[in-house]
Amino acid sequence: MQSLVKLYPIETREPSLGDNTGDLDRLKKVLVGYLQGRNPVVPFHRIAPLAEAFRQSGFKGFAVVIHHPGGPQLVDFFAQAPEALVGMALDLGTTHLEASLVDLLSGKILERAAVENGQLEFGADILARIHFAATKVGRQTGLDLLHERVMDSIHTLALELAERVRLKPVQIMALCVSGNTTMAHFFLKQNPYHLCREPYIPVVNSPDPFSASDLGLDLHPAAIVWVMPSIGSYFGGDLISGIVASGLDQEEETCMLIDVGTNAEVVVGNRDWLIACAGAAGPALEGGVARMGMRAGPGAIEHCSIDPESGKIDYQTIGGAPARGICGSGVIDLVAGLYLARIIDIRGKFKANQPQTEGRLLEQKDGLAYVVVPAEETDLGEPVLLSQVDIDALMRSKAAMYSILATITNQVGVSFHDLHRIYVAGAFGKHISPRQAIVLGMLPDLPLEVYTQLGNSSLAGAELMLTDETVRKRCRDVVCRITYIELNVNQEFMIRFSGSRFIPHTDHTLFPSVPFQGES
Amino acid sequence: MQSLVKLYPIETREPSLGDNTGDLDRLKKVLVGYLQGRNPVVPFHRIAPLAEAFRQSGFKGFAVVIHHPGGPQLVDFFAQAPEALVGMALDLGTTHLEASLVDLLSGKILERAAVENGQLEFGADILARIHFAATKVGRQTGLDLLHERVMDSIHTLALELAERVRLKPVQIMALCVSGNTTMAHFFLKQNPYHLCREPYIPVVNSPDPFSASDLGLDLHPAAIVWVMPSIGSYFGGDLISGIVASGLDQEEETCMLIDVGTNAEVVVGNRDWLIACAGAAGPALEGGVARMGMRAGPGAIEHCSIDPESGKIDYQTIGGAPARGICGSGVIDLVAGLYLARIIDIRGKFKANQPQTEGRLLEQKDGLAYVVVPAEETDLGEPVLLSQVDIDALMRSKAAMYSILATITNQVGVSFHDLHRIYVAGAFGKHISPRQAIVLGMLPDLPLEVYTQLGNSSLAGAELMLTDETVRKRCRDVVCRITYIELNVNQEFMIRFSGSRFIPHTDHTLFPSVPFQGES
Repeated sequence: MQSLVKLYPIETREPSLGDNTGDLDRLKKVLVGYLQGRNPVVPFHRIAPLAEAFRQSGFKGFAVVIHHPGGPQLVDFFAQAPEALVGMALDLGTTHLEASLVDLLSGKILERAAVENGQLEFGADILARIHFAATKVGRQTGLDLLHERVMDSIHTLALELAERVRLKPVQIMALCVSGNTTMAHFFLKQNPYHLCREPYIPVVNSPDPFSASDLGLDLHPAAIVWVMPSIGSYFGGDLISGIVASGLDQEEETCMLIDVGTNAEVVVGNRDWLIACAGAAGPALEGGVARMGMRAGPGAIEHCSIDPESGKIDYQTIGGAPARGICGSGVIDLVAGLYLARIIDIRGKFKANQPQTEGRLLEQKDGLAYVVVPAEETDLGEPVLLSQVDIDALMRSKAAMYSILATITNQVGVSFHDLHRIYVAGAFGKHISPRQAIVLGMLPDLPLEVYTQLGNSSLAGAELMLTDETVRKRCRDVVCRITYIELNVNQEFMIRFSGSRFIPHTDHTLFPSVPFQGES
Repeated sequence: MQSLVKLYPIETREPSLGDNTGDLDRLKKVLVGYLQGRNPVVPFHRIAPLAEAFRQSGFKGFAVVIHHPGGPQLVDFFAQAPEALVGMALDLGTTHLEASLVDLLSGKILERAAVENGQLEFGADILARIHFAATKVGRQTGLDLLHERVMDSIHTLALELAERVRLKPVQIMALCVSGNTTMAHFFLKQNPYHLCREPYIPVVNSPDPFSASDLGLDLHPAAIVWVMPSIGSYFGGDLISGIVASGLDQEEETCMLIDVGTNAEVVVGNRDWLIACAGAAGPALEGGVARMGMRAGPGAIEHCSIDPESGKIDYQTIGGAPARGICGSGVIDLVAGLYLARIIDIRGKFKANQPQTEGRLLEQKDGLAYVVVPAEETDLGEPVLLSQVDIDALMRSKAAMYSILATITNQVGVSFHDLHRIYVAGAFGKHISPRQAIVLGMLPDLPLEVYTQLGNSSLAGAELMLTDETVRKRCRDVVCRITYIELNVNQEFMIRFSGSRFIPHTDHTLFPSVPFQGES
């Protein structure tokens, strides 16, 4: 295994009148042998502690070298081999930060933890935070505060992870950060102003790795901080992580990667070519719009089914807790079930006077709502409802998703049936049932074995970056090779979007496995 | 000319929906073309100011790249080409700091200035300062204070030099520091404890270049700071500067470099081999011991001659001011003159009752003293004297110097007559009269055209480093190639030293051009 950070055993002769090499020069001379003649650079603030540690250890022990892209950096020295040399992989999500502690020597994942993004108080969505960044808050800017909050969240995670393995955050020698482009800007304290304004230009897509002390991170002061590169404002490092974690960039056959969230990001390609696009899918898929929608968490209905005859609902909540709401994957199951049970029509509209909905359809001031869980089964004192408004939002989201997939494959002259594999990434991707998504016409009608759920591939990519030196080059290659299509100004996408606002589609021959429930 | 710091004209297309490259990535992409495919690294704290300047300039202008040994660093951007891109070369002397402002684009020296080393209050000599470094002064260490003082002196110089060309210190993009090993430790704030304790080991001989902000220098925050490498405690970067400034390392024929001060440092060699040694020559040569001794400065007698018949003295003072003392070169002229006028004998002792000394020899409580300048010609109200004690000190110094030269040449099997050229460096070397030094038996009896006076070659080497990229490699090569002989433990040196304590030498056949004034 090739790691970003390595440990080299050092044994040298003690200095003498006959060999008056300087302490640090003595140590570096040994390392040059390990490093194929390359001279490791000692960052200025490491000169004194390194020379001191080397001398105190009697000129033998273990040197820590961090392999920066510009060359190796010698950053620490231990008399005894440390039990573990750890790095932290971080998925910098808009709502949650998820991190793992990685043993850099064995590549083993030691611990995982997550915290809520401390920036939430300044805006639930990215756009609100970009606007907040430009405001003045006393003597600080909004950007200062957003940066502080994300630093706090990272420090909380670092402390928790380190404590679990009886280490201190200062022993963390590397941090790899994977997040969307805006979160990367907040982390780097860069002005996000132009990210949401045409032509949507980041300050930087591929920042050079730097040291923890540059940013004031409470890790090892010389810990390498690597931010996964992004392709543009709407295609971030979390996606590059997804590409390397799925191995899409090395596949012989053409595959697809879908990351579903408020934005849907899609990559199609193989080891020879890669094409990407991103488009707004709407917040419905993250449970952000449905009145009873909620993010995946205890009590969220993550899966359900409806018996087409009786209309009886079976549901599962996360953690088996009393139902409190519906998360994205639950909404998809539910709407697919409503369609198969003929409770909604191909436009996603509730049908009146259906026997299966007896007692389950309520008239509300903004339209009909379906009782998913009656009040007595929840611990909210009210029922969990799915309203017509919620379904309409999902219809737009699923239409956007399918249109994105159809547009991008069409642009490269690939049919869905040419796809060897479709990787579904993201927290949402982990729970989604591909079959129900196909019924809705959100995902193409392909055999279920084509679909592979990746889980948090943003985190997985960051973990790989820490433990596999070849991933750096792969990331660089992906960034160079990938062609990004801007869908916001794409005419074909707009046309396809109109055709996709039906279940499963206006052209139902595209979905042969889905029963057609249109007017007969 | 190849410079450490370069300016590249940049012209890019403005970002658009069809080309959503990040601002910094756009700039770097152009530079990669200039840099033979190498990716310039942007130091973390330069990301925001660079991206801002690039955007403000309408995506065209001039990029500043610093060529670090690890690779190019992109550090600044200007809409208009700056009139000059300047660097500062610095000779970090024990008593004085001398600096020049260099135009990095043309290689021209714009200005020179000098200040007294602010550390003098903590000890005139290096050893006293090393001891002071280990003391506690309130909440600071002596090292903290020594470092602060030298930083203050550098800031004073930077401000003066910059103001003279209507710039600000923050516009200085590079600093090359050349000094002895201890001064380099004080500058880098490294513990000098082991420098003066057997086996005399530096913390570091070849520190990696770093950025001005790492050390808190008030220059451009990303200015490269380059410290000339040293070979050991007694052979510093000032000597490496001397070697590259003289070109000794590139000579076909064997040459010698002598830097005379409290320590005498000597290098012999050519483009194929280099050997070096250093030895204590005593402070006599820097005017540090003679009661009337003084460093070169206004009123110091820098040259003088004595008419052998009449005993009449002719002298010149620096700046033509009334005599106030004698500097090193004056002491050499004077003692040589005293010898040629038979006022002192071959042991350097005053002879009694010589007619030429009438009224010029005073009996003092520690022995005889010679009136160089009578009280009425000075503005001190007292005469300028040279005492027997002073001459004895010079005798030891000149003996040490000759023994060092004889030992090192003998060790490599080279005779003095094989030397194509002898470079005499150091502030002292600029003023010394080689002929009088030969009379004393301090320098070998060779034709005067063999001797070349270099002036401040420590500063000259630093200037070269800033303006000639090949000098880096030459310095690295010199450090690798040079063999250092420790004279403090050398038996041959001790034997030669005894034989050299006469004028010109016990073996006067070594000095055929010098009249033998021994007992007849």
